[in-house]
Amino acid sequence: MAHEAPFQLLHSELIHYICKSADSTDSENGRSVTKLENMGFRVGQGLIERLTKDTARFKDELDVMKFICKDFWTCVFKKQIDNLRTNHQGIYVLQDNKFLLLCHLSAGKQYLEHAPKYLAFTCGLVRGALSNMGVKSIVTAEVSVMPACKFQVMIQKV
Amino acid sequence: MAHEAPFQLLHSELIHYICKSADSTDSENGRSVTKLENMGFRVGQGLIERLTKDTARFKDELDVMKFICKDFWTCVFKKQIDNLRTNHQGIYVLQDNKFLLLCHLSAGKQYLEHAPKYLAFTCGLVRGALSNMGVKSIVTAEVSVMPACKFQVMIQKV
Repeated sequence: MAHEAPFQLLHSELIHYICKSADSTDSENGRSVTKLENMGFRVGQGLIERLTKDTARFKDELDVMKFICKDFWTCVFKKQIDNLRTNHQGIYVLQDNKFLLLCHLSAGKQYLEHAPKYLAFTCGLVRGALSNMGVKSIVTAEVSVMPACKFQVMIQKV
Repeated sequence: MAHEAPFQLLHSELIHYICKSADSTDSENGRSVTKLENMGFRVGQGLIERLTKDTARFKDELDVMKFICKDFWTCVFKKQIDNLRTNHQGIYVLQDNKFLLLCHLSAGKQYLEHAPKYLAFTCGLVRGALSNMGVKSIVTAEVSVMPACKFQVMIQKV
């Protein structure tokens, strides 16, 4: 019964709060997105700590990514990633065909420009989770048709 | 598996964000608490709409309060209110013996002064939910021993 609702509504409220003053030059918009990304990063760090408390060691990078797509995604968004692709050279694309945090936006193109605000937190979330598992990355997101979206993870070799 | 964690961590991050600049006169602290309360109000409004979508009409005020203590509380905090008391004259006291949003704070008296920040959002949450069910109220909270706390709801007769 609406288990995902508290998180989703709080996330919307957060965006509203952080972006409201930004009405809004591009640089202000950029700052809002960065703030959201940073908050996601810290939440991702905390979350992955709890989720991996009792898991076995991960075999490799792909094993880590699968954990993000299944257990981690299910915990936050109540569904798994629908498709995971990789070029086996450090780039992963995670596709969610019905992304929770876009579900309440209209599917047309009208709100497409607002999508970055609704994805920034999650980019940070993934980056924070990976970071706590020793994987440094850059995470970006793109939307073509809402509520589907793709997250691209570029692993930064140390 | 840690279903409450995303909401809880996001809530902590929100407090951190809103209160960080407030380092901090009493009036600034007060403003932070008010902001949190307002955000809770709007989340409560949205949440109760979803939760009551398919419920039968409520008989009376007590029936509404029971719904808050059971379904609403479980949806957000993954447990029911432990004790509901009323003077039958518009005052209700909801006691949660292990309140989710205080669980990660140490149980001693050391952090007791920070409790109001961690309760403001939830006060607003309850007030918003009641408001959308046509019940105007004032909601306050008190903690004596963490992580237990009591929320007092004073119904405002119209």
